[in-house]
Amino acid sequence: MSSDDSHDRPRQPARRGFLKAGGAAVAASATLGATLAQSPAQAAEAKHRPAAADPYTAVEPFYAPHQGGIVTPQQAHTYVAAFDLTTTSRDDVIKLLRQWTESAARMTQGQSAEALEGVSEDKPAPDSGDVLGLGPAGLTVTFGFGPGLFMSEGKDRYGLASKRPAALVDLPRFNGDQLLPEKTGGDLYVQACANDAQVAFHAVRQLARQGYGTLRMRWGQAGFLSGPRGQTPRNLMGFKDGTNNPPTADAAAMKEFVWATAADAPWMQGGTYTVVRRIRITLEHWDQMEVGFQEQVFGRRKYSGAPIGKDKEFDTVDLDAQDKDGNPQIPDNSHVRLSNRASNDGAQILRRSYSYNDSTNFYIERWPPWRQETEYDAGLIFVAHQADPRKGFIPINEKLAKFDMMNQFTTHVGSAIFACPPGAKPGSYIGAELFEA
Amino acid sequence: MSSDDSHDRPRQPARRGFLKAGGAAVAASATLGATLAQSPAQAAEAKHRPAAADPYTAVEPFYAPHQGGIVTPQQAHTYVAAFDLTTTSRDDVIKLLRQWTESAARMTQGQSAEALEGVSEDKPAPDSGDVLGLGPAGLTVTFGFGPGLFMSEGKDRYGLASKRPAALVDLPRFNGDQLLPEKTGGDLYVQACANDAQVAFHAVRQLARQGYGTLRMRWGQAGFLSGPRGQTPRNLMGFKDGTNNPPTADAAAMKEFVWATAADAPWMQGGTYTVVRRIRITLEHWDQMEVGFQEQVFGRRKYSGAPIGKDKEFDTVDLDAQDKDGNPQIPDNSHVRLSNRASNDGAQILRRSYSYNDSTNFYIERWPPWRQETEYDAGLIFVAHQADPRKGFIPINEKLAKFDMMNQFTTHVGSAIFACPPGAKPGSYIGAELFEA
Repeated sequence: MSSDDSHDRPRQPARRGFLKAGGAAVAASATLGATLAQSPAQAAEAKHRPAAADPYTAVEPFYAPHQGGIVTPQQAHTYVAAFDLTTTSRDDVIKLLRQWTESAARMTQGQSAEALEGVSEDKPAPDSGDVLGLGPAGLTVTFGFGPGLFMSEGKDRYGLASKRPAALVDLPRFNGDQLLPEKTGGDLYVQACANDAQVAFHAVRQLARQGYGTLRMRWGQAGFLSGPRGQTPRNLMGFKDGTNNPPTADAAAMKEFVWATAADAPWMQGGTYTVVRRIRITLEHWDQMEVGFQEQVFGRRKYSGAPIGKDKEFDTVDLDAQDKDGNPQIPDNSHVRLSNRASNDGAQILRRSYSYNDSTNFYIERWPPWRQETEYDAGLIFVAHQADPRKGFIPINEKLAKFDMMNQFTTHVGSAIFACPPGAKPGSYIGAELFEA
Repeated sequence: MSSDDSHDRPRQPARRGFLKAGGAAVAASATLGATLAQSPAQAAEAKHRPAAADPYTAVEPFYAPHQGGIVTPQQAHTYVAAFDLTTTSRDDVIKLLRQWTESAARMTQGQSAEALEGVSEDKPAPDSGDVLGLGPAGLTVTFGFGPGLFMSEGKDRYGLASKRPAALVDLPRFNGDQLLPEKTGGDLYVQACANDAQVAFHAVRQLARQGYGTLRMRWGQAGFLSGPRGQTPRNLMGFKDGTNNPPTADAAAMKEFVWATAADAPWMQGGTYTVVRRIRITLEHWDQMEVGFQEQVFGRRKYSGAPIGKDKEFDTVDLDAQDKDGNPQIPDNSHVRLSNRASNDGAQILRRSYSYNDSTNFYIERWPPWRQETEYDAGLIFVAHQADPRKGFIPINEKLAKFDMMNQFTTHVGSAIFACPPGAKPGSYIGAELFEA
């Protein structure tokens, strides 16, 4: 390439200048107070500000006491991925986490495009360039550590075995699990959420490239939520999903149910434990069911989202209510009863799930006339954050896996668990407390 | 279910009343003049109005001289699907097309939720309910007929063989094609486009259900575009895609390149021929390339989108320009040169493609140490509309398939061609001109 082509570099002087000037100039980016140099208190405050009206200019803080993407109001898109480490060097892992931290911080603040400035045409671009001009779009990047970071095939590759939190258990096999190895597990977790599908995917794609030679991707999955913010979104079964979540604005509830304590792993103070499940839903089968039966399965009304017997979505679930024949209004094997905290010794988890909709699967019928059939590969990327999976997802799902009427329409094909450490401090990196304590 | 639960029916009095009142009440829905009873002239006018500011309230006309989703400004999401007819009855096909027409008209006008009103709890819901409250979201539904409708395994199932347009050719095998049967072909085509992913998928899902016993799904695929409307979106390779499209506002260009003529099939007057290709892109490989090389492949600059040697995206592509050594500035085997109309006897097609990003694929390396690897199943759902594929996609792709430098990063794994008839007349149905002439 001749050098007179150098004018074709991305030009974002407005944004770049703006970031350097500290955020006073651009009215639309009211959330941008959370810059790289902010204090933790400022960051915590910024996290609860309303989103910018333009979904592309919204900015979420990165350096903060907690990682983003946990109690952050849920963005419309996600790309989640897990990686297996291939290196045996502890330094390689730290180096990677440093680079990931810096890149994620930059991308969440809308600076990914700047990485292209001054790039040589003779080298691979450090950035794939597919989100040029899109803005930060509310991006959060959440990192997590799987069991394999601490012990893999009997080997303590990085000298971390003694620091594995007791809460980072290997998930038990649940009734009905049909897990595929290529959709399950992983040493490292990256969850990118944004108001735009390409912005979310872009973040994972850049981070994955940086790990070349250190790790390989194990699985990746795009997900989405539909509908205007502020409403409980409907999943692909047509029901509102997330109504009974503990409120993220309630700091006491978050402390009780979401944030890990230092009890068995001081480095996890302010982190959370995240369970991811890829749950395929047989939509073709579900769509053949009567609405009344679908409502019995959920324990809620389909259209209003109200618990059966109640009027409104947020009416309290009354598990004792009986119909005129003395039967429970909310069936014993309904999803809402089995997953309710009253049925689980008060356990609660913070669900932050997304729908997924990959292209169709093709299969041959298992009986004559052996016809080919096509089915949707669609369902739910279930994501749940919690203070301790032994008191959260595991007991709840043990019960659901055995009794939930919904199971005849769902298949768990992927599963993973991660310890997501606290947020990084400016100048430091994600997981520093684990590696340097 | 006890009858006192009947209060839980969807209530959308505002929208329902609004639709009945003809659209005067809600300022945000300026495009809603195009209702079911509009005249073709009104509909054509409505099609070119600017989109509503709220992407969920935008409404596209359905009954119109041309089907929507062809020259309609491209919505952000699509779900495309193809179906194989299993019935041998011509009447079944007509009945299905009537039902599809009525349902598509209703859904595009935002009335899908109304189909749930008064539904019995003892019957399957006529609508899956997952888009309740979302609004029409600019939905268009485009129908097409594949070669199998006219002749399938040597059988003229519906007495239509003599009406097959000469332009509805079977696509030749192109150099490098790696087509999968389960991603290829189909007797009927449904392309739903909307400003929301769930609204697009919802439309196909309802129509697929209505065909139970008459057809089965062959393949389905979700796609998306990122970025604010009005900019040329970037594909996953990071380049702007669609810059050189003929302008949809130019009626003469559309007449020349997009709309079918009555020459060999009078019933196709006002329709178009649509080619769909599922093109996987090896993003991992692409991302290792130097930016300068990527630009040689496209023949355009990555950041500005300008032709090599020019400054701005919409600068004219000058295929004769030479660099200082006398070599062509735009390489001989670059994508922009090979696909340019000047290289193809003036042929042009209207591309309306989407990116796709399914979950990762897993494979075993073909050589020792036979490691497992994971790769993105991502790329482009290429969609092109044209007056005649024999003068459009086929000659252009014959050339691209042989010479395009881009081929080392792309694999065509799915392919289909359809005749998309003109728009339906109110009271009639899609394809009536074919079945009733």
